[in-house]
Amino acid sequence: VTSTEAYAALLAHLRESAALGQIARLLVWDQEAMMPPKGAAQRAEQAAALEAVRHARRTDPRIADWLAAIDPGTLDAAGRANMHWTRRGHERAVRVPAALAAEIARETTLAHGVWAEARRARRFADFAPALARVVALVRRRAECLRRDGETLYDALLDDYEPGATEAGLAAMFGRLRPRLTALRERIAGSGQDVPRLSGSFPAAAQLALAREVATVLGYDWQAGRLDLVVHPFVAGTLGDVRITARIDEADPFCCLSAVAHETGHAIYEQGLDPALAWQPAGASVSMGVHESQSRLIENQVGRSAAFAEWLYPRMTAAFGAIGVCSPEALHRAANRVEPGFIRTEADEVHYNLHIMLRFDLERALLAGDLPVGDLEAAWDDRFAADFGRAVPDAGRGVLQDVHWSEGLVGYFPTYTLGNVYAGALWAALRGDLPDIAASIRAGEPGRVLDWLRSRVHRQGSLHPPAEIVARACGEAPGEAPLLDYLDEKYTALYRL
Amino acid sequence: VTSTEAYAALLAHLRESAALGQIARLLVWDQEAMMPPKGAAQRAEQAAALEAVRHARRTDPRIADWLAAIDPGTLDAAGRANMHWTRRGHERAVRVPAALAAEIARETTLAHGVWAEARRARRFADFAPALARVVALVRRRAECLRRDGETLYDALLDDYEPGATEAGLAAMFGRLRPRLTALRERIAGSGQDVPRLSGSFPAAAQLALAREVATVLGYDWQAGRLDLVVHPFVAGTLGDVRITARIDEADPFCCLSAVAHETGHAIYEQGLDPALAWQPAGASVSMGVHESQSRLIENQVGRSAAFAEWLYPRMTAAFGAIGVCSPEALHRAANRVEPGFIRTEADEVHYNLHIMLRFDLERALLAGDLPVGDLEAAWDDRFAADFGRAVPDAGRGVLQDVHWSEGLVGYFPTYTLGNVYAGALWAALRGDLPDIAASIRAGEPGRVLDWLRSRVHRQGSLHPPAEIVARACGEAPGEAPLLDYLDEKYTALYRL
Repeated sequence: VTSTEAYAALLAHLRESAALGQIARLLVWDQEAMMPPKGAAQRAEQAAALEAVRHARRTDPRIADWLAAIDPGTLDAAGRANMHWTRRGHERAVRVPAALAAEIARETTLAHGVWAEARRARRFADFAPALARVVALVRRRAECLRRDGETLYDALLDDYEPGATEAGLAAMFGRLRPRLTALRERIAGSGQDVPRLSGSFPAAAQLALAREVATVLGYDWQAGRLDLVVHPFVAGTLGDVRITARIDEADPFCCLSAVAHETGHAIYEQGLDPALAWQPAGASVSMGVHESQSRLIENQVGRSAAFAEWLYPRMTAAFGAIGVCSPEALHRAANRVEPGFIRTEADEVHYNLHIMLRFDLERALLAGDLPVGDLEAAWDDRFAADFGRAVPDAGRGVLQDVHWSEGLVGYFPTYTLGNVYAGALWAALRGDLPDIAASIRAGEPGRVLDWLRSRVHRQGSLHPPAEIVARACGEAPGEAPLLDYLDEKYTALYRL
Repeated sequence: VTSTEAYAALLAHLRESAALGQIARLLVWDQEAMMPPKGAAQRAEQAAALEAVRHARRTDPRIADWLAAIDPGTLDAAGRANMHWTRRGHERAVRVPAALAAEIARETTLAHGVWAEARRARRFADFAPALARVVALVRRRAECLRRDGETLYDALLDDYEPGATEAGLAAMFGRLRPRLTALRERIAGSGQDVPRLSGSFPAAAQLALAREVATVLGYDWQAGRLDLVVHPFVAGTLGDVRITARIDEADPFCCLSAVAHETGHAIYEQGLDPALAWQPAGASVSMGVHESQSRLIENQVGRSAAFAEWLYPRMTAAFGAIGVCSPEALHRAANRVEPGFIRTEADEVHYNLHIMLRFDLERALLAGDLPVGDLEAAWDDRFAADFGRAVPDAGRGVLQDVHWSEGLVGYFPTYTLGNVYAGALWAALRGDLPDIAASIRAGEPGRVLDWLRSRVHRQGSLHPPAEIVARACGEAPGEAPLLDYLDEKYTALYRL
């Protein structure tokens, strides 16, 4: 077999694998957005059967043969990236025994249902046994994956953020924490009263406005759709990228923020290079970079003073009186700082403190330093220490997030990494486009999209995630731009 | 390997295969009901990748090993049915080379798109080359499948109606035709003027009423949902059976009939034996039996005088004045006999004449007696001869149905077989439940569902299709009950 033949065979294999991966994601979308209640048991079987097929393909020994037969010197940058990501994925997949992979798939499917029930009942004890099984399985998997010099947590991080390390993330959090808590104290001490929205926010009007928001932020409706779910997410790539939202009739920001956030994810997927469709080199590169796109659109654009000027007349047209009487007041209401219990509803100052809590707890769980039975108490203690409030119930505490039930340990820090990347990208973008606020104010943020498209989206996975962000910014991304942005924003908002 | 181990391994294999088959069906549902336009290219790749996996599983040589190792004497009726259907499916699958199966999947996916475009443009010439390729591939497949003594058409029929033969179906049509055409002549000569609906039929009101119709006919909304599509169909089984409809704001029967029809299909799938889920023995048995369930609910129940009494006040509540002033007039309007161009809109007298036309043309195509280039002329000539009207354009003629573009040759006669089975089942049901009209009139047709459930739905695939119908009826199903039912119904309606 020649190098050319081997590469062609590899690409054909990857193409089918990518198509099957898209199907797996569609099953999740359908489950959350469309599936009738009695379909759940069948869906678990469908997901398990498809995962068995995908695991067999990932561990197919022909992949190693093809990689060995390909002469990298004959390949372009995309070809070399394809080899890199394929080798990495294959080597990780074969280290995990098929029986363990199947057991994880089965236990996490079950644990997800147990978690949802326990969350409804707000009783951690109902979830603890299932979580203990999941943590034990995830630890076994990390032990299979760990290479010399890596921690167990490092081994898992590679699934979500290639190149990130536990020590590096801990250092990042260490640098973020003092300035974030100092900013929070200054805000708390400002004595400023920030307005809240009030009024009537019917679901249909919220949805219509949310569609308008997604449109102005660059979402392509010919390549997607918007549906309501319990926990919003995005699913798909390129020509079929579906966004989701939920509606709180008392708080229109809930839906609008979710739609702006998911639109940020969606324009990334819609903006990937179609010439590299079906190839690892063309895919989105990591959870951290993904989150940088969603957070930048949600926060740096969507919660900006300029966007509030565009949004204010549309909100009053949609809802009538909304309890604030100017774009400035709307901007302040959209950026109210409060030590809430729920991560997904947190303001930009508190958000990363929520992540730090989870990062430290899940590292302790994985290392075995924290038994699952003690997790709720550990959560509540840490929350009281970090936020100064007592968690009222597990639903607003340890049970609020789905991730651990799905075996996603090492995923949380990518949210903060995304915020850090978004801060760095936004600073670079403002340097290149100093008058961008005027475009946003006019409802023409297309230049934001163009900038992200060429600097990030079209880069796919041609480089490791941190390198893609560094190339887009002209320097390695650090925490300073995010912290400077937050200081500037909240100093103005709270007149500090 | 013991017989018990082999049977357990076979069941596990079948379970995963069934789950993957459900996913394939969900992809089709999503494509028609949900997918954004730009998702089409990806979806074709997804479907092809999944079909490749499924074909490999169907032809897995371990199936033959397991079948050889199982002692049928240790199995119950369901186990023996599982062996029968598995052996049959495996033997058929291995006779078709994987390359041919893949080529058919690819060409029919493409031809479907070409057909949809040609149909919009109403130009058969745009579709003919693609159809010629499909027919050639289907013929090659039939040649692979054909066994001694079978015609090519027989070999294809086995996909849709195990046990049916070309000769048997031709004889059935031969017996139906004289009485159907005689009835049509009597109706045409009756001089009766049948009322038409008129009024305003907004989409939302149609949909709300359609949901009420599905509910009263026994549809379980916890195990399904209703969405709008261009060509209605049903997708799924047991806990997740989704129905679809389309709306014509000028004609509410379009939506109501489709929903009644698809509800008939759906209650069959929802009513299968859950203890035999994931096993061939528990699945719906054939297209003909499936169509018997949909046609019985649509026609024998949904177009009955009794159902019109239940429906009439609900239609006037939903739409105000509807142009007919009594349940009797509604019943007559719903059963208006007219030689229309479109099969799916045909009355019960003309419906089977539409099928006969297709049956004869597709047999000629497959045998090579009719070149694809001559198909439109042959269609138009036959339509003029059978229906006494000139086809105005290909959209209302040879391009109206999707089947041939998808390579479905041998499928059409199962519609008439379904009508014949429905006639026989209805006669038997009326014999068992002589007062069923009163229940339908009262909006309580649950006894129809109960009867079908025990006699048909719960039988799954425990027997061949004709045997299931014969057991339900107490005798082999013939055409007489259908023809007697039509004579009785239209004699009364048209005062013949």
